Amino acid sequence: MDEKALNLNFRHEVGGEQLIIAIAQDYKSSEVLMVAYMNREALIKTFETGKAHYWSTSRNKLWFKGESSGHTQEVHEVLTDCDEDAVLLKVQQKGGACHEGYYSCFFRKIQENSGNLELVKEKVFEPENIYGEK
Amino acid sequence: MDEKALNLNFRHEVGGEQLIIAIAQDYKSSEVLMVAYMNREALIKTFETGKAHYWSTSRNKLWFKGESSGHTQEVHEVLTDCDEDAVLLKVQQKGGACHEGYYSCFFRKIQENSGNLELVKEKVFEPENIYGEK
Repeated sequence: MDEKALNLNFRHEVGGEQLIIAIAQDYKSSEVLMVAYMNREALIKTFETGKAHYWSTSRNKLWFKGESSGHTQEVHEVLTDCDEDAVLLKVQQKGGACHEGYYSCFFRKIQENSGNLELVKEKVFEPENIYGEK
Repeated sequence: MDEKALNLNFRHEVGGEQLIIAIAQDYKSSEVLMVAYMNREALIKTFETGKAHYWSTSRNKLWFKGESSGHTQEVHEVLTDCDEDAVLLKVQQKGGACHEGYYSCFFRKIQENSGNLELVKEKVFEPENIYGEK
């Protein structure tokens, strides 16, 4: 990988870090799994290792997805959008993407009339078995 | 719609505006079409009208997607993620989502070795026919 080539538009700034938006999508079913940010280092690491790396805006550090849980994302393909400030990762997800135990972080629907959140997915693992008791 | 219910985590700040990330996905094929931001007003308008509204961070104003082009997005379902700072819109896209003439804004793949961008989709319309000459 020629690192000079990865000059996307890191225009999103959180905590002083220059970021792109990164969407992870199941490479087979096309289910959207999660959305997060990447800085340039995370994008380069993703290509180098073949596994998704993000930038954690809460911990303000590089985040190897699944490092502690084992729920890694093997990256099959990376697309970018028209203004090059976002990427779409086609991934093979181990376990589940969501730390709350769901395959996708988008496990609740906003109800049209009430605005309430309705659970529309089933858990694929129990968080306390993976992350330990809180 | 009880507007008080739509208290998601508008934690992304661009140009002083409090925003959530909004991903639009084809409701049938599950193709990811685009990613943008929404402020609270855009989310409410989306529910009120059934058509996707975003917040344009370049023009710093509410953005009714397809208002000039006719390429609107009829919203079938809205999901939110675990930390409630993003939404996933399942939409029926008229024309194409991308102002460059593609159905999806993610029409280029980042090549693994070179980092170069490779066109992987075909145009569905000619932008100059929709948006006029530049």
